[in-house]
Amino acid sequence: MTDTYTSTALLTDKYELTMLQASLADGSAHRQCAFEVFGRRLPNERRYGVVAGTARVLEAVRNFRFTEEQLASLDFLDEHTLDYLRNYKFTGQIDGYREGELYFPASPILVVRGTFAECVILETVILSILNSDSAIASAATRMVTAAGGRPIIEMGSRRTNEEAAVSAARATYLAGFSATSNLEAAARYKIPASGTAAHAWTLLHTNPDGTPNEAAAFKAQIDTLGIDTVLLVDTYDITEGVNTAIEVAGPELGGVRIDSGDLGVLARQVRQQLDSLGAHNTNIVVSSDLDEFAIAALRAEPVDVYGVGTSVVTGSGAPTAGLVYKMVEVDGVPVAKRSRDKHSHGGAKAAIRTCRRSGTAVEEIAYPLGSEKPEVGNLKHRELTVPLMRDGEVVEGLPTLEESRAHLAKVLVTLPWEGLALSKDEPVISVRFHGV
Amino acid sequence: MTDTYTSTALLTDKYELTMLQASLADGSAHRQCAFEVFGRRLPNERRYGVVAGTARVLEAVRNFRFTEEQLASLDFLDEHTLDYLRNYKFTGQIDGYREGELYFPASPILVVRGTFAECVILETVILSILNSDSAIASAATRMVTAAGGRPIIEMGSRRTNEEAAVSAARATYLAGFSATSNLEAAARYKIPASGTAAHAWTLLHTNPDGTPNEAAAFKAQIDTLGIDTVLLVDTYDITEGVNTAIEVAGPELGGVRIDSGDLGVLARQVRQQLDSLGAHNTNIVVSSDLDEFAIAALRAEPVDVYGVGTSVVTGSGAPTAGLVYKMVEVDGVPVAKRSRDKHSHGGAKAAIRTCRRSGTAVEEIAYPLGSEKPEVGNLKHRELTVPLMRDGEVVEGLPTLEESRAHLAKVLVTLPWEGLALSKDEPVISVRFHGV
Repeated sequence: MTDTYTSTALLTDKYELTMLQASLADGSAHRQCAFEVFGRRLPNERRYGVVAGTARVLEAVRNFRFTEEQLASLDFLDEHTLDYLRNYKFTGQIDGYREGELYFPASPILVVRGTFAECVILETVILSILNSDSAIASAATRMVTAAGGRPIIEMGSRRTNEEAAVSAARATYLAGFSATSNLEAAARYKIPASGTAAHAWTLLHTNPDGTPNEAAAFKAQIDTLGIDTVLLVDTYDITEGVNTAIEVAGPELGGVRIDSGDLGVLARQVRQQLDSLGAHNTNIVVSSDLDEFAIAALRAEPVDVYGVGTSVVTGSGAPTAGLVYKMVEVDGVPVAKRSRDKHSHGGAKAAIRTCRRSGTAVEEIAYPLGSEKPEVGNLKHRELTVPLMRDGEVVEGLPTLEESRAHLAKVLVTLPWEGLALSKDEPVISVRFHGV
Repeated sequence: MTDTYTSTALLTDKYELTMLQASLADGSAHRQCAFEVFGRRLPNERRYGVVAGTARVLEAVRNFRFTEEQLASLDFLDEHTLDYLRNYKFTGQIDGYREGELYFPASPILVVRGTFAECVILETVILSILNSDSAIASAATRMVTAAGGRPIIEMGSRRTNEEAAVSAARATYLAGFSATSNLEAAARYKIPASGTAAHAWTLLHTNPDGTPNEAAAFKAQIDTLGIDTVLLVDTYDITEGVNTAIEVAGPELGGVRIDSGDLGVLARQVRQQLDSLGAHNTNIVVSSDLDEFAIAALRAEPVDVYGVGTSVVTGSGAPTAGLVYKMVEVDGVPVAKRSRDKHSHGGAKAAIRTCRRSGTAVEEIAYPLGSEKPEVGNLKHRELTVPLMRDGEVVEGLPTLEESRAHLAKVLVTLPWEGLALSKDEPVISVRFHGV
């Protein structure tokens, strides 16, 4: 899991390789194509989406190389196709929105250009990454906004696939979470790791006759982790738990965690109790099925830190962003599917976002990639499409995860005032097509 | 991705290792404990759950070994703890439900026994696997039931994390899906792979003047993949697409795929059209946002194969099974958290499921692991708890994926008749506690 190189070549749907084989046979494999990643709508009637996973996509494309063992498993392909894959390395161009950028329906998030053969087989891995990471970052950003500056710790690893947990932790950090419980994510992406204790820790300190000994559990935790640690106080009775915690730790205890019950009521009670015990600086950490709405509902309560698990790793009701990877251009000619209920705009596109002098965003304008930018009159604008890969090599100087995190925080405040509301509505910005 | 050994040791929450350190310091690390995996309820008011991921759990536990590089990333631990981890290998016992077994609220799905130290650090990886795989298998099984014997192809890789896609494909195959689009899953788990073609394939065969040439796309696909292939007919106009398909392929064409529109209406029209063209054996494959309800709604239509993507890899509204890993016993003494809204039964448990002479299941009875089975009177019964790991070694002769798939198909028919309904209701079987 900590290998820097792992082949991503089989994270692919079979039909991509059979299309490849058919295209090598009829010569269409070498036509120059453009594929575009975009969403037709935002899930759950949200007002904005957050692009996440771009850096992981570029790494996956770089590692999209077939080993002999992998080729041996592709027994449905002919020799010509296997030879093509044996020598495969993406040599095309990738442009797109930077990680941590906002997006809306029809935003051209990623544009992949090259031969049909080299572009078509990247579809699945590119979408897997962008769909999962963007879904989680989009949900997480709403939680960060709802928390109004209070830190959130991601602790949802146990509720999602073990590797998805690692990319989920990364996406939540991008969105502005403070830390993750996941150690692989901490090691792989240099994200702060955090944690408190489980109920099992308190239960472990049961006397031989079966009676609880919460004090022993708290004492052992403090002896090892120091007075700054966070004690879990709701294993038996919360009021007694808080009393015991301060008895054992003294009023300088770092924090207490409440993981059950009506968190608003309990936070108030516990704050009062801590204050009455002189523990004015002891933090209150709450967890237990928090989502953006529950976080917002606790805004007026004396909560210091939120712990969020299930809801964020499952995208809070939208576990996938629903992004698609569609061919938009063949040999310079725009193409688009014509079936009734799915509409696409042909041609490879770039986009700008216009804004007022105040900085408030107005709209996105998508225009043909490589052509002149549209006139925007009195408005200011920012280019959303940046080069990500050139001739198969990742462009140098792309933003780090920390920089993308800072970028997202900055662009969020450019949304019109209704954009950060949690309720369902239309996308707060629309995408206009210019010359496409 | 195809390595047979990859360390799973960092797929772990930080608090597990800080609890480990505290327990090594105060000596409680060596107390004998039992942890149990169970669900408090079934998500989305479903009537049964499907256990999946057990074989992956056992492999993850086997591969839970720390490399020096991993240990170097754990700079918050003391030397004593790092030494413990350097030599860590689980040496305890694991018992539980076999993969492909049904479960209900409070079913003791997995019981892990050993020292506190060796059990506590497995929490996250065990839950990640069981929660994701069981969520997907539970949703997929409902789809298989709804399909009433017609094959379903899993094609959702692009809508979930790239590694979650692989385990999702495995879980859907366990549930009774016929094949997956995912090549890594096919190679890793020996699952049949399948696929048709994308709209990009048809769009690629655009004439230089931009006009469509569907016939060229169909011809090239058939030339390479043979007459048994499935042609995607809805890129432009479905009626024309079907005409072109049969013109090019002749009436022996394997199938046509419809990926948009009102699938019921279209399937009927296309069946009629195919029959009128003499293509009586040409299959109709439908895809496009199918879930168990949409599959069921197409039961009366001339559909031959379903392709299912997003809904199954996201658990059809329940992306996680909500299973927890709770300490239930310390040094032979049952323990349980006492907070108001979360109730657990202490003690390590085994379970049997009773059934009538007809084979219909009646209830589950959970009883202390290792003690005598409860009396069941005139009923028959089956032991649900089987040994999975002994002294850290995987028990020999555990069922293969194919055997687990067959087991699930068999136990599904033992549910009371209302058990397979798709609508929301209570669990169809309840778990009774005997002597715990």
